Amino acid sequence: MSEPSVSKTSSGNFFEEFRLGQKIRHATPRTVTTGDVAVYNGLFGARFAVQSSDTFAQKIGYPRAPIDDLLVFHMVFGKTVPDVSLNAVANLGYADCRFLKPVYPGDTLNAVSEVIGLKENSNKETGIVYVRSSGFNQNGETVLDYARWVMVRKRDEKAEPTAEKVPELPKSVDVAKLGAACPPIDGAAYDNVLAGSPHRFGDYKAGEKIDHIVGITVEDAEHMIATRLYQNTARIHFDHFTESKSRFGKRLIYGGHPISLARALSFNGLGNAFHVAAINGGRHVAPFFAGLTVFAWTEVLATAELPGRGDVGALRLRTVATKDHPCADFPYKVGDEYDPAVILDLDYWVLMPR
Amino acid sequence: MSEPSVSKTSSGNFFEEFRLGQKIRHATPRTVTTGDVAVYNGLFGARFAVQSSDTFAQKIGYPRAPIDDLLVFHMVFGKTVPDVSLNAVANLGYADCRFLKPVYPGDTLNAVSEVIGLKENSNKETGIVYVRSSGFNQNGETVLDYARWVMVRKRDEKAEPTAEKVPELPKSVDVAKLGAACPPIDGAAYDNVLAGSPHRFGDYKAGEKIDHIVGITVEDAEHMIATRLYQNTARIHFDHFTESKSRFGKRLIYGGHPISLARALSFNGLGNAFHVAAINGGRHVAPFFAGLTVFAWTEVLATAELPGRGDVGALRLRTVATKDHPCADFPYKVGDEYDPAVILDLDYWVLMPR
Amino acid sequence: MSEPSVSKTSSGNFFEEFRLGQKIRHATPRTVTTGDVAVYNGLFGARFAVQSSDTFAQKIGYPRAPIDDLLVFHMVFGKTVPDVSLNAVANLGYADCRFLKPVYPGDTLNAVSEVIGLKENSNKETGIVYVRSSGFNQNGETVLDYARWVMVRKRDEKAEPTAEKVPELPKSVDVAKLGAACPPIDGAAYDNVLAGSPHRFGDYKAGEKIDHIVGITVEDAEHMIATRLYQNTARIHFDHFTESKSRFGKRLIYGGHPISLARALSFNGLGNAFHVAAINGGRHVAPFFAGLTVFAWTEVLATAELPGRGDVGALRLRTVATKDHPCADFPYKVGDEYDPAVILDLDYWVLMPR
Repeated sequence: MSEPSVSKTSSGNFFEEFRLGQKIRHATPRTVTTGDVAVYNGLFGARFAVQSSDTFAQKIGYPRAPIDDLLVFHMVFGKTVPDVSLNAVANLGYADCRFLKPVYPGDTLNAVSEVIGLKENSNKETGIVYVRSSGFNQNGETVLDYARWVMVRKRDEKAEPTAEKVPELPKSVDVAKLGAACPPIDGAAYDNVLAGSPHRFGDYKAGEKIDHIVGITVEDAEHMIATRLYQNTARIHFDHFTESKSRFGKRLIYGGHPISLARALSFNGLGNAFHVAAINGGRHVAPFFAGLTVFAWTEVLATAELPGRGDVGALRLRTVATKDHPCADFPYKVGDEYDPAVILDLDYWVLMPR
Repeated sequence: MSEPSVSKTSSGNFFEEFRLGQKIRHATPRTVTTGDVAVYNGLFGARFAVQSSDTFAQKIGYPRAPIDDLLVFHMVFGKTVPDVSLNAVANLGYADCRFLKPVYPGDTLNAVSEVIGLKENSNKETGIVYVRSSGFNQNGETVLDYARWVMVRKRDEKAEPTAEKVPELPKSVDVAKLGAACPPIDGAAYDNVLAGSPHRFGDYKAGEKIDHIVGITVEDAEHMIATRLYQNTARIHFDHFTESKSRFGKRLIYGGHPISLARALSFNGLGNAFHVAAINGGRHVAPFFAGLTVFAWTEVLATAELPGRGDVGALRLRTVATKDHPCADFPYKVGDEYDPAVILDLDYWVLMPR
Repeated sequence: MSEPSVSKTSSGNFFEEFRLGQKIRHATPRTVTTGDVAVYNGLFGARFAVQSSDTFAQKIGYPRAPIDDLLVFHMVFGKTVPDVSLNAVANLGYADCRFLKPVYPGDTLNAVSEVIGLKENSNKETGIVYVRSSGFNQNGETVLDYARWVMVRKRDEKAEPTAEKVPELPKSVDVAKLGAACPPIDGAAYDNVLAGSPHRFGDYKAGEKIDHIVGITVEDAEHMIATRLYQNTARIHFDHFTESKSRFGKRLIYGGHPISLARALSFNGLGNAFHVAAINGGRHVAPFFAGLTVFAWTEVLATAELPGRGDVGALRLRTVATKDHPCADFPYKVGDEYDPAVILDLDYWVLMPR
């Protein structure tokens, strides 16, 4: 039998196989549990009270502690990998990411993606695929929606792209669109002491910079456990045998790992930023590997009231994560170039009680 | 007080202490939870939809997502270790392993073993103990049943064995005995896209070989977390201090670890093989250590209809796992000898929707 | 803006900032789940039947399997770290620690501490802070209460302490105060075989020593996952970049980690010691690091009947944990000095069925 495996094994999609407007339903549906929450907590150690405590969450207006926003993001993202980015050279960016419904233990997540842009690179070896991916729950309600673009290899360099279009994507999510995943919050019942911070929305000002001080070193076992928990199959994270011969010489850590670490570290200084409402844009500035230590700092880019909501306000934040570089000096760019210590530049909206 | 600890500490059973027909009730009863599932998912990253999603499982006929078959196996196996194999030199094989009832979160597992064979080795230092072990749930229903044989040290070389008998064990589980742990499946409700594979029972043919492509490197933290989760107490997996002076010079990984990794990897090519119905035989061909990368490939040994069941069919598979050797060339045996890269030769039945 | 971060980021309390009688409500409330139990089991592998099995627990009188006592301790302890010991030089000791109510999955833990003693050190650079910390559940019931003293740096060497007092603390918890967290146990329903040990309360005698035989090596990923699970923020456990330049040259493992390992290892010889009722005192004799292997042995210091309780008796135990040193020779002290292999000296009460 010649190559009997070809027909059964998925080798993922290559650039010339994507079609503009193509809709992809992703495998594998995933029921999120308090078990997933515990593994996630063990890996990142976040301390936001709303996600940590059913009683705290209930007191302010949630039916119970919701699943961490970024855990939802990673699970939905993970589902898209086998179809969208198995042949990716690089994950180029995210935009217009909105959290639209809270997710609770017991909910089942699914994901679909639509191809919204295609652009071949001049070398004809790769092209950029733009997708809009949505995660939804067992009731068909969209819980998360975001755009992503990724550089994908071609299977055949001579193949023509099926179309060419670069989509317009907003630089940031409109304030009017924030808050869908946040129920009305009872600010009087929100206990600052239990939450771990006296600072509410009104205490933050644009331009303010916060060093989150603490660093966390990442081990190979940790990032692999996290990435498998999300059912993310990108082999570059798992296969030391192959990656030891690659340009990096080792496994590359999933870009979402430092995002979750930076979010957990940001508790020190942003303890009441209980909900990530949107991600305006994210850039993985440099690859990240086991054995390195993540530090982070945040700049408040803007503060915004939410139309019709007196309970919570929004902070637009830039959180910068570094490797092996404490952030008391707020390292970011030197001229047009990123400081070599920077690994992540994340622009996002959080909600905070007023 | 002379040696007061002797009477309290278990040193396990030695070969001459086993009696033919002896029944051993094992400690420790174990309630399996969604927490266990999450830890297991983080360690192996399986993506079979039935075990991953309550809603998917419910749509096809399960009351909820069942516990992964191999997690059940490892937990039952773990219970037998303190009584059966604490003084084992080698775990020689498994046979006639059948999954008889689905296990759900909240169920409590217990285990008993019966000694079904004994054979002293010619060196008089060790003997082979054959046991039939059963796992059962809180209602006393058997969920798993298998035979295992293991080479066990003697406490006293001069001791006589209590009996000698080599049991007859089937080379493979009879097709008529498969499927007890699988409820009737609604094949029309089984969504191939969500499940991640378009290939159903009828698409596979005996002789077909599938390379599962991806490799996963194992870290010491990972296999120890897994093996402790199963409450498996074999010290060779945990104690670097002692093992650093052993013939291997390091901790040996529990043989069940590459089984679970190979099963997870097999999703790529066998995505609809949602249930392991039986294990015909398993052989740990070579020891396996942290830092090595597991790859796997599978040959379809046979296909079989199940008497009286139009919903699912059975594939008999040989899955071969290797260390640091991608499996595009399907490494197996060279003459009578295994390829040095092979670490696992597993012969088992899976069910797939028709 | 000059140092805008100072007002938002917590740098913890320094010695001169503590006041006698000060009450501190700690962040972050934490709902304990079966997920936390699974992660904990994966890290420590305890096999006590009561905590492992709902059915076993229910048979003897619990409504369901309670949370492991030490997991409760670590979670409550973790909450106190940001307020009490973020600027600690050394964690000096525990005393008078009592478990007062069982904790079940779904319960939410909170913690408060009261400053009960203060004593500046003669070097004027540090002082000893004594606190009494309590953990309580969502109903406000105290589940755990203990005293701890810790050496804390001063922010300003010239600052005067706010008071000076060294509290009286009992050398051991009074037997009459034990058992509050243990419901009436049905000893006839307690199945020794399932529990894994034939030895009950009456079988132990003061002076008896038990070598727990097995060793477990600790990896960096493991202790960091555990310590984050407890939301313990002491950076010395997580930040290799900074600690690589410290006196140890590496991350220091949370002192509670070897406590949990020693407790899990103690199952071999103390399998029916199903409940830790109190900790009389604990001393972290030497620092402990990843890559080392923990062994443990126990001496029965005393046996005691509990007033009014015919169901269970108490054993006062000294469990000694070592690094890279099997404990067949019961290593402890050489003269007044601890054996260099000893890392932990723990004096505690356990309950056992009669």
